[in-house]
Amino acid sequence: MCKACDYTIHAAQHHFGWDNSFPPVATVAPGSTLEFECLDSSAGQLTPNSTVDDVKTLDFGKVNPVSGPIVIDGAEPGDVIKVSIEEFKPSGFGWTANIPGFGLLADRFEEPALHIWSYDKNALGTSAFGPGGRVPLKPFAGTIGLAMAEPGLHSVVPPRRVGGNIDIRDLAAGTELYLPVEVTGGLFSIGDTHAAQGDGEVCGTAIESPMNTVVTLDLIKNEKLETPRFTTPGPVTRHLDGKGYEVTTGIGGDLMEGARGAVSRMVDLLSSRYNMKAVDAYMLCSVCGDLRISEIVDQPNWIVSFYFPRLVLE
Amino acid sequence: MCKACDYTIHAAQHHFGWDNSFPPVATVAPGSTLEFECLDSSAGQLTPNSTVDDVKTLDFGKVNPVSGPIVIDGAEPGDVIKVSIEEFKPSGFGWTANIPGFGLLADRFEEPALHIWSYDKNALGTSAFGPGGRVPLKPFAGTIGLAMAEPGLHSVVPPRRVGGNIDIRDLAAGTELYLPVEVTGGLFSIGDTHAAQGDGEVCGTAIESPMNTVVTLDLIKNEKLETPRFTTPGPVTRHLDGKGYEVTTGIGGDLMEGARGAVSRMVDLLSSRYNMKAVDAYMLCSVCGDLRISEIVDQPNWIVSFYFPRLVLE
Repeated sequence: MCKACDYTIHAAQHHFGWDNSFPPVATVAPGSTLEFECLDSSAGQLTPNSTVDDVKTLDFGKVNPVSGPIVIDGAEPGDVIKVSIEEFKPSGFGWTANIPGFGLLADRFEEPALHIWSYDKNALGTSAFGPGGRVPLKPFAGTIGLAMAEPGLHSVVPPRRVGGNIDIRDLAAGTELYLPVEVTGGLFSIGDTHAAQGDGEVCGTAIESPMNTVVTLDLIKNEKLETPRFTTPGPVTRHLDGKGYEVTTGIGGDLMEGARGAVSRMVDLLSSRYNMKAVDAYMLCSVCGDLRISEIVDQPNWIVSFYFPRLVLE
Repeated sequence: MCKACDYTIHAAQHHFGWDNSFPPVATVAPGSTLEFECLDSSAGQLTPNSTVDDVKTLDFGKVNPVSGPIVIDGAEPGDVIKVSIEEFKPSGFGWTANIPGFGLLADRFEEPALHIWSYDKNALGTSAFGPGGRVPLKPFAGTIGLAMAEPGLHSVVPPRRVGGNIDIRDLAAGTELYLPVEVTGGLFSIGDTHAAQGDGEVCGTAIESPMNTVVTLDLIKNEKLETPRFTTPGPVTRHLDGKGYEVTTGIGGDLMEGARGAVSRMVDLLSSRYNMKAVDAYMLCSVCGDLRISEIVDQPNWIVSFYFPRLVLE
């Protein structure tokens, strides 16, 4: 329970996909603080006892549930919802999977894989990965958004201008997120909580981890906003950067190919240096390595770089 | 003069473009340390007294000179040159320009613009930008590379697998860079020194600043390397991240469009909040803001984010 919360939204109050005709589970005044019980992105299909066989039989009709939707009283199209991300209450369990057909290197990694994580939900320091590996944790909600104006049921997978499955690592506690309203009431939902993720989420999954999430929802009337924006209260990578980075690059005229090249080269580097299966290196990259655009102006070749934090394995 | 250096390569010993038939200015043993006098990327066409009119008359046949080339004794195709970046000796002067037709938002910013920077070359803390703005400095060489196997003269503008105009912000002192050798001797050159730059170099120029650069060149025989990679000795953004970030996003199926959207929105945000000319905000973004790929797997929409460090203006 959240002592300072005005509402608790229970895990059963979730939906799959976005549809502005879904009935709201609560109507709240601007300024309200809510605690959401968020399922993991498998909606409980994967557990601490799961094996790779369970990845093969995942029901994709039941992935990425989000808790909500919430009507913010007075919100109208053209307004903005300010989401103050207050707190996460992690569960101590997480999973990362390579799901065939999904992920930046889907062509290279065609077989399913699964890594089960266990971490101290109170200390929330690092989680072990094989011998010697430790991934610093920084919880956030991967999916956070409002309903779209366009009627009908829309897949939860792609993010859109109203937010949704934005998977932005730095939407951690203390960050303020701004989302444009397209329908009366806004219809806010949240889920897909992650214990850790790198920029890019390159294998397609993070440390997928059920956890309660506390946010405050404010209303800003008549504010121009094309796509989500956010403000972080302080540094965003100090949990990762203490020992610096190993960095690989992709160079060429296509940013997507550059990203694929940079990540593939880091997978090769880590798997060869640490005698690790390539798919394990790939999943490790997804939960803690960052895709950055080093230069995007030196025509006709751009550089995408993949930054792997050395403290994870050194 | 560099007391610990084996060689000094003078500013006059520079070339424009890459051509593996350019005569080397020195042949050095692996392990040698060299100090390069590097001109700025205008080759001295822009000075502390320049105005925007000088941008209009820039001779583009004489941009981005690099000092070299250096033969590393024993280097052959299939080897790798390890570049230990030892030290920068900044000049205290720099410039940033919007050059028509060049830069991520060339369609939006069609007029030339110029900002002249002055900074304390010894303290090397920040450089002022208008009232209240201060950009943290972190010198590096934008162009650092080897000659290509392909004969003839090649433009210096695009980076390639042998390096060149890679414009990677984190190639600062202490970083070790690895470059693949394509020709006998490697033919190493360096220049295009920057006092500061953000990831992306979005307006097309950084704080372009002449400065001496000290590197050690080592040879690794028979090492597989497709594109440059590097290792940083520690954190890479702590000069920027103390107060956190303002972040804008671009969402869609094309990373380049996403990058343009994110940067354009940050220009709008900064120019409106700080009553700044849009082109000034654009140039400021180029010297200290970072393009990151937040997610690249949630088909069919990717998210590119632009991170502007709050301490620059707050």
